[in-house]
Amino acid sequence: MIVVLAGGTGAARFLQGLVRALKPGEVTAIVNVGDDAEMYGLYVSPDLDNITYHLAGIADEERAFGIKGDTFAVVDSLARFGYPTWFRLGDRDLATCLHRTNLMRKGLPLSQATAQIVRAFGLQTTLLPVTDDPVRTKLETSQGLIDFQDYFVALKAQVPVNRVVYEGAERARPAPGVLEAIALAKGIIVAPSNPILSIGPLLAVPEVREALRKAQAPIAAISPIVGGTALKGPADRLMRELGMEPSPVTITHLYNDFIDLMVIDQIDSALKGEIEGLGIHVLVTDTIMSDMAKKEALAKEVIVAMGVET
Amino acid sequence: MIVVLAGGTGAARFLQGLVRALKPGEVTAIVNVGDDAEMYGLYVSPDLDNITYHLAGIADEERAFGIKGDTFAVVDSLARFGYPTWFRLGDRDLATCLHRTNLMRKGLPLSQATAQIVRAFGLQTTLLPVTDDPVRTKLETSQGLIDFQDYFVALKAQVPVNRVVYEGAERARPAPGVLEAIALAKGIIVAPSNPILSIGPLLAVPEVREALRKAQAPIAAISPIVGGTALKGPADRLMRELGMEPSPVTITHLYNDFIDLMVIDQIDSALKGEIEGLGIHVLVTDTIMSDMAKKEALAKEVIVAMGVET
Repeated sequence: MIVVLAGGTGAARFLQGLVRALKPGEVTAIVNVGDDAEMYGLYVSPDLDNITYHLAGIADEERAFGIKGDTFAVVDSLARFGYPTWFRLGDRDLATCLHRTNLMRKGLPLSQATAQIVRAFGLQTTLLPVTDDPVRTKLETSQGLIDFQDYFVALKAQVPVNRVVYEGAERARPAPGVLEAIALAKGIIVAPSNPILSIGPLLAVPEVREALRKAQAPIAAISPIVGGTALKGPADRLMRELGMEPSPVTITHLYNDFIDLMVIDQIDSALKGEIEGLGIHVLVTDTIMSDMAKKEALAKEVIVAMGVET
Repeated sequence: MIVVLAGGTGAARFLQGLVRALKPGEVTAIVNVGDDAEMYGLYVSPDLDNITYHLAGIADEERAFGIKGDTFAVVDSLARFGYPTWFRLGDRDLATCLHRTNLMRKGLPLSQATAQIVRAFGLQTTLLPVTDDPVRTKLETSQGLIDFQDYFVALKAQVPVNRVVYEGAERARPAPGVLEAIALAKGIIVAPSNPILSIGPLLAVPEVREALRKAQAPIAAISPIVGGTALKGPADRLMRELGMEPSPVTITHLYNDFIDLMVIDQIDSALKGEIEGLGIHVLVTDTIMSDMAKKEALAKEVIVAMGVET
């Protein structure tokens, strides 16, 4: 079994390749829940759903959120009642969230609700929320501490951030299966997700980071920063605002206590020596997942470089 | 103020005429909640919403349920998760139900949630659910006691009924404003709604029937049975199954303890004497509300016949 630490779109695209390189049943993703929120009275879990929709082949890849061809009748109708409508939850996407909300109101933890949803979409990949406890990513800005969705969607990440807080993470326990997956994995891969907003909340759960440090399996991380910029989203700008240089070297520092291998793009090949100087192996390859063949090729290369037999 | 005891479509259509004959702010409808149900984890209140949509001019008059031109993306998507989809709750309609559910989860009673929804649709008419307590109409059939929506929507009312039960009605208290409206009304009109399924649950709330008996204002009822058949819905068949002849005379017997005036269609003019023999005045007129002018004309005629000054 290969375990992937996953955020949203970058992870979802990598997982599409990985389930083709292996078998879908051999992949377990441990997924960020720091973006989760209550919207319109519904429990939304954007990273879990985005991965589900990508693996089911129905993701809206242009919006990088929700379901392809979705409509917005409900959210537009809610405007009449005074709800903000900047969170463009599509109607089909809303059905998923409504089902999850119903299951959780019946007392199911997020992990069990997720398992039911993933199965309903016909997927064999295991998706585990990193925790069933509430962890909420918040951002300190000039306007004070704001919620992730306010920052990311309402403000389009266009406001400087001084500090990122993973509210609840210190007290959060890993969801059932998370520690077991890390302990039993043949290889662990940190997906090319935002290190602060997507992987950060995962690592902020103390037992998860501890388990990664102790893991027997080789651990690789794929840099989401290529040529100094983020492939998707605000990671590069956010890193700069937090005083970090957006570079695979910085990513290596962030994960240095548990990774064995750093995967960087050809364009960053000059950084190989510097990363190796930190005691981390380096795979230099084409990390731009522009089509399904490239996604699968990247997944295969990473697995081979980790020395995992499949 | 004129008070209308209201069920679904027949009442909604009559109310459209009444708010034109009077002023919208002079009308209070006391509305059946026996059809209310939890569907897809949402609190649906078909009669309240159907009246709201009719008065807002957005009702789907062909389906006699929901919003004109609505779409069904959510309900169709819910099928994947195993939800039954025979209850065709449209996306825009679902937004209303989601809002009501959110308000009620915050602790608001149905009457307050209703007031907010009615205001959001820009209506000046007051809609009062007959009670904030749960009253659920159930039907005894060869398959046992079944829920109203199962009977009415899933089974299309195509199964014989032995008995109708208004579960919870005996213990239900009138919602705030209901008894006051009845006491202060200048006239009270029982809309041409199904006497068993729509008006029955209203009258089964003990204090409501008692208040009607004691009301100072004249009370009229418009027969929903015309020429032996129901204008809409299964009232005639249901009445027969319950051993009643579907006729304005039977309607008069059902309401005899509190009405002063029975409004019947021209086609039933031969029944005038029999109804008058029960001590009830009779207005014979055209009760078929085929267009807005006829709805308004019927409303005006009833008000005049009740002797109410407007």
